[in-house]
Amino acid sequence: MTSPTPTLAELGERAKAASRALRTTSGAQRDAALEAAAAALEAATDMVLAANAADLARAEEGGAASTVVDRLRLDPGRVAAMADGVRAVAALTDPVGQVVEGYVRPNGLRVTRVRVPLGVVGIVYENRPNVTSDAAALCLKSGNAALLRGSAGALESNKAVAAALRAGIDKAGIDPDAVLLVEDARRETVDEFVRLRGVIDCLIPRGGPSLLALVRDRGTVPYVLDGDGNCHVYVDAAADLDMAERIVVNAKVQRPSVCNAMETLVVHEDVAGPLLERLAQSLEGVELVGDAATRAVLPQAGEATEEDYATEFLRLRLAVKVVADLDEAIAHVTRYSSGHSEAIVTGDLGAARRFTGEVDAAAVLVNASTRFVDGGQLGLGAEIGISTQKLHARGPMGLEALTSVKYVIEGDGQVRP
Amino acid sequence: MTSPTPTLAELGERAKAASRALRTTSGAQRDAALEAAAAALEAATDMVLAANAADLARAEEGGAASTVVDRLRLDPGRVAAMADGVRAVAALTDPVGQVVEGYVRPNGLRVTRVRVPLGVVGIVYENRPNVTSDAAALCLKSGNAALLRGSAGALESNKAVAAALRAGIDKAGIDPDAVLLVEDARRETVDEFVRLRGVIDCLIPRGGPSLLALVRDRGTVPYVLDGDGNCHVYVDAAADLDMAERIVVNAKVQRPSVCNAMETLVVHEDVAGPLLERLAQSLEGVELVGDAATRAVLPQAGEATEEDYATEFLRLRLAVKVVADLDEAIAHVTRYSSGHSEAIVTGDLGAARRFTGEVDAAAVLVNASTRFVDGGQLGLGAEIGISTQKLHARGPMGLEALTSVKYVIEGDGQVRP
Repeated sequence: MTSPTPTLAELGERAKAASRALRTTSGAQRDAALEAAAAALEAATDMVLAANAADLARAEEGGAASTVVDRLRLDPGRVAAMADGVRAVAALTDPVGQVVEGYVRPNGLRVTRVRVPLGVVGIVYENRPNVTSDAAALCLKSGNAALLRGSAGALESNKAVAAALRAGIDKAGIDPDAVLLVEDARRETVDEFVRLRGVIDCLIPRGGPSLLALVRDRGTVPYVLDGDGNCHVYVDAAADLDMAERIVVNAKVQRPSVCNAMETLVVHEDVAGPLLERLAQSLEGVELVGDAATRAVLPQAGEATEEDYATEFLRLRLAVKVVADLDEAIAHVTRYSSGHSEAIVTGDLGAARRFTGEVDAAAVLVNASTRFVDGGQLGLGAEIGISTQKLHARGPMGLEALTSVKYVIEGDGQVRP
Repeated sequence: MTSPTPTLAELGERAKAASRALRTTSGAQRDAALEAAAAALEAATDMVLAANAADLARAEEGGAASTVVDRLRLDPGRVAAMADGVRAVAALTDPVGQVVEGYVRPNGLRVTRVRVPLGVVGIVYENRPNVTSDAAALCLKSGNAALLRGSAGALESNKAVAAALRAGIDKAGIDPDAVLLVEDARRETVDEFVRLRGVIDCLIPRGGPSLLALVRDRGTVPYVLDGDGNCHVYVDAAADLDMAERIVVNAKVQRPSVCNAMETLVVHEDVAGPLLERLAQSLEGVELVGDAATRAVLPQAGEATEEDYATEFLRLRLAVKVVADLDEAIAHVTRYSSGHSEAIVTGDLGAARRFTGEVDAAAVLVNASTRFVDGGQLGLGAEIGISTQKLHARGPMGLEALTSVKYVIEGDGQVRP
């Protein structure tokens, strides 16, 4: 006899209880639980692969696209990598208890602001089963309970991964409900999930535009959005064209399907000719669309529409815009930026200062590829997402983004006059 | 001929334009604008008072409660205090441009995280006209455009105050749209206001439970909630009873109508008898309700209901709960806390450590009155509200809460391998 699937409300209460229990754990205990979870995941490789095979069979029967199937597919190496990911998180510095600020007031009150866990972190995500272990590890490390709602297509894989992690955590003496997977994969549960006010302290949706829109429109819990990246590289008149070419090529083609890849090249008219001529060679295989000035240099380019400038292509297509000056470049970026990562290539200090000061994005780069805007590349150790919102966390989110700050005020009997 | 009242969408676009212009201002320019705004407000005292008289007349005709009329009423001293408040904000340290963190990656990329303005800050507030100048000053100081939506009842006062501030800002050479008042005081505009996505970067509602509920249920813009304070003081077995009495009295009666006043006293059974007997005297005039153990000591106390423990009275009524131990105290606080300010009075270091570690609130206090949880008392210089949420800002919010952080990444041609 199997027990009935718990309701979302029941899971929520269990997650809250686990988050309260986590408050009394030490960093060493949580690290030990992460090590045990990693070991349990490795030990469960066969079970995880069998579950994954069932998901894959369903996906293939359903005629899923090959990219979907690829993201879903696990093999022994990938499972080992997931376990290593959990161990890597264990090795990071514990954010909990860090004193962000501390001072003594004139009346003797000692005030400190201390990092504390958020409580229950909810993650809604799509097909990749590795998100289950990555998110669980980051949450547990930072003292949070993880309430995970993966996609229906990866349900069996996620169940197997979560069960292994929970077994390891339990063995290490921490409440296994610190990692809870929502097994009810109906579409309606997402809607219910984003409205679990009083349960979820922070929701992080990892998915496409329709999921983000659902969270913004229907969500009542606090959330951090991992949004689109319509990223620009602006090549200034004072750019070193060798460097510009290298950065543009890297930002576009090194991995075009990700949010920090470049989607539009903005180029100063003084260097548009020579730069675009070089790029015609080095961006071979990239579909180019541009404005009239672009097409004057590159007749083979298509005509860029308003829509092109506004679109995150996530593939080998690049929009090009030629501008008369820095003002026009900043205006173009300001108009179309999704607030993710924006780069300038220039040797002009004044232009760099203006671009970094006036462009409003999570990350602004000078003479470097947008592809560096990533938790790993910036040294955060691990990443739960890249926030394109301005409140709470902005840009790559590591452990710090999974904490809040509490005022601790200590006196010896002070009262307010 | 007067120009037609601009629509909310039009005001939003003007606020956005002003926020972009503010990005290129220096702190010195913004401070000069604040000084000019303060001077203009003082110079406009007669006009402000005339406008206020019109609001007061309407309020009295409409039979408004005397507390409402009191909050609305201005006099020359109050206008001068508003101007002084603006000057005090000018004197604070500029948060914009502060480097929160900075390091060099192994590949030579220099990474800094820099405080930047949020952009457009929306404030919805109730009757007090001084919020108009306070909020405008804090927003301008931190480089944000302020989009203000006060109550219909204070509309004439707010218009006069905003006009004076705008005239001063304009004179100092900053776009006066940095401070914009929504003059359309229909109820529906609040609903529209909280859904100005893409315009308002951060909404701070200052008002009662129905406004907060509207924001949570209908709002689609990012917001920070200035929520309820159902605050507790727990007097431990190891408390100094003189100190406990002083703190309890201060937390309850020094200003009972505010969010950081105590609403429930939790007391360890070992000291309940002597403490409650003292409090019967020193809390004279405070209506007491308690559990059976409380009423055994104080027969005059009423019976505390579940509802009493859950209520933020904001008046001279106090709920009392006697507990057997620290566990029960923490459990009671955890169950009823609104996450604002929670205090323990104790001489026991272990009890203090457990209370501050396990109680989940914006502020936890040891041997001090809850009334200290306030931006002024904690040295923030000024306060735009007290956040009871965990994301972005928690507890008293000063200038820092009105900023975001941007990654600035500088290289010399790095590309991602």
